[in-house]
Amino acid sequence: MLLRPSEDDLIARYFAPIAGPGGLSLKDDAALVAVPDGAELVVTVDALVAGVHFFADDPPETIAVKALGVNLSDLAAKGADPLGFVLALALPRDWMPDWLKAFANGLGQAAETHGCPLLGGDTTRTPGPMMLSITALGTVPKGKMVRRTHAQPGDVIAVSGTIGDAALGLKIRKTPALDWVAALGERDFGFLLERYLKPRPRVVLAPVLREYARAGMDVSDGLVGDLAKMLRASGVTGILRVDDVPLSAAAHAAIGYEPALMADAVTGGDDYEVLITLQPEKVADLKAAAKKAGVPFSVIGEVKAGTEPLTVTYKGESFETASGSYSHF
Amino acid sequence: MLLRPSEDDLIARYFAPIAGPGGLSLKDDAALVAVPDGAELVVTVDALVAGVHFFADDPPETIAVKALGVNLSDLAAKGADPLGFVLALALPRDWMPDWLKAFANGLGQAAETHGCPLLGGDTTRTPGPMMLSITALGTVPKGKMVRRTHAQPGDVIAVSGTIGDAALGLKIRKTPALDWVAALGERDFGFLLERYLKPRPRVVLAPVLREYARAGMDVSDGLVGDLAKMLRASGVTGILRVDDVPLSAAAHAAIGYEPALMADAVTGGDDYEVLITLQPEKVADLKAAAKKAGVPFSVIGEVKAGTEPLTVTYKGESFETASGSYSHF
Repeated sequence: MLLRPSEDDLIARYFAPIAGPGGLSLKDDAALVAVPDGAELVVTVDALVAGVHFFADDPPETIAVKALGVNLSDLAAKGADPLGFVLALALPRDWMPDWLKAFANGLGQAAETHGCPLLGGDTTRTPGPMMLSITALGTVPKGKMVRRTHAQPGDVIAVSGTIGDAALGLKIRKTPALDWVAALGERDFGFLLERYLKPRPRVVLAPVLREYARAGMDVSDGLVGDLAKMLRASGVTGILRVDDVPLSAAAHAAIGYEPALMADAVTGGDDYEVLITLQPEKVADLKAAAKKAGVPFSVIGEVKAGTEPLTVTYKGESFETASGSYSHF
Repeated sequence: MLLRPSEDDLIARYFAPIAGPGGLSLKDDAALVAVPDGAELVVTVDALVAGVHFFADDPPETIAVKALGVNLSDLAAKGADPLGFVLALALPRDWMPDWLKAFANGLGQAAETHGCPLLGGDTTRTPGPMMLSITALGTVPKGKMVRRTHAQPGDVIAVSGTIGDAALGLKIRKTPALDWVAALGERDFGFLLERYLKPRPRVVLAPVLREYARAGMDVSDGLVGDLAKMLRASGVTGILRVDDVPLSAAAHAAIGYEPALMADAVTGGDDYEVLITLQPEKVADLKAAAKKAGVPFSVIGEVKAGTEPLTVTYKGESFETASGSYSHF
């Protein structure tokens, strides 16, 4: 009979080594975290289910990087600096120690990269697919959280990095035999796939957003749908110019080969870029500060008064998308 | 075709009404929480899977009460006052709106009862069983968290409330046809079942524990196993007198009929009582303060120097249990 290690054994073996000091070596029932005086706490939670949010046979490191990354992306978009995170992990019956080890290693590396230590967790078994839930904590100086609801008419709309890479990466992952995939160079292929597998949360932008953004959210369910959501939550509308949406060289190559992919790029999910609105007179300073942090920002539209749906234009015409946004639900 | 509401619809309909102010009506990507100056944050997470931690056909209100309760119990045992919680909820394909409504209502009521508002959440679907993960936040005055690792030789061991009710309630839930179950009066039957279904986290004891406890944890995996765990984590050993373990009238009746149930009572899980060690000279004050808070404390053993296993005695003899403790893993 193969003896399974207990939960305590698992925690000690794989997770205690990656825990931060607040995690008390994971030997207590709870974590203990100092919050700087004058700071407010920002809390976000995301759940990922195998077969829904990732493929069960994705490399364990990338699942870990993604699970933490989606939460860090939320914090970043709120202008919050990471404080730490807790993990709930439900393992299916056929989990393997090697898998868990690789997962913990990936998680520990991502935590270190972004300065967001593991504080605690709960491990359990499930008769269903693997599920992970991460709650990430961050801090902002009092009153400085960037809200989704604060977009104002006259603001410009800007987005970080490049859009659509992960959506195209997911298509590659799902249907590698497509013509346009075959036409991609090896480097572009790898870049897009990597952008799907390993989101790069824009943690470095948090202080920049606190300084310049009026409203903000991260782009996780597709640019068009997420922008529509932010404008609706702010009680305004706006215009999005697809022509101005920043694309990577790889996405550019794919869309050049197969123009219909532009719709996937702007409605697909998993970008984990930051979408903000800001006053037009602040754009130059935002761009300079963001560039200094290593992430470009592009202006892609304007906020307008009114409650009609977001207008999306492309090459001078209205741009229709099948679903508007991608939802895991 | 039956149209399913989107995640945003679900959140707005069922969860926004029960959210606290920090939840920003759940319209943002993250919650915003003020932490009092001079306080430290205590963070705990627990995951519950249908078929593992609860029965899928348990009433939705009781699943909600339990999911929040197990986290509040952890906070209470650390001496932490609740600040709020976030929820990750994975719904199986066959979920029903009525179920979710009842679940949200139960959660809202439990949150209000214990002063622990919903701050945010993430809802997703799963091809597997329902899974819930709650991360609860609490605060303690700086340096006042009650640690699992601080038991010292010479301390007495004390436990709140009564032990074993939930373990017997679970037996009733699983095998209601047993002789001893049939022999229980209706009131005792109902009491034990309720103690299993709806843990009563000892939130009111948090300030009392901060004042008097040297080490503490909540009893969730069985008294014997949890005590052994706390002593091990503190680098000490001790003695537990089963004769002194506090029992409810209902548990007393059940064990009177079927003496073997005593082992279930002290090793079964889901008590959600508080287990502490404290200096002997503080016992009288602890008992008085706890009584004032409405929850009795009983002394059940002593902490000893050494690293040999915990000694458990019953009626003057060594008390052997099959497993020591119950683990969901």
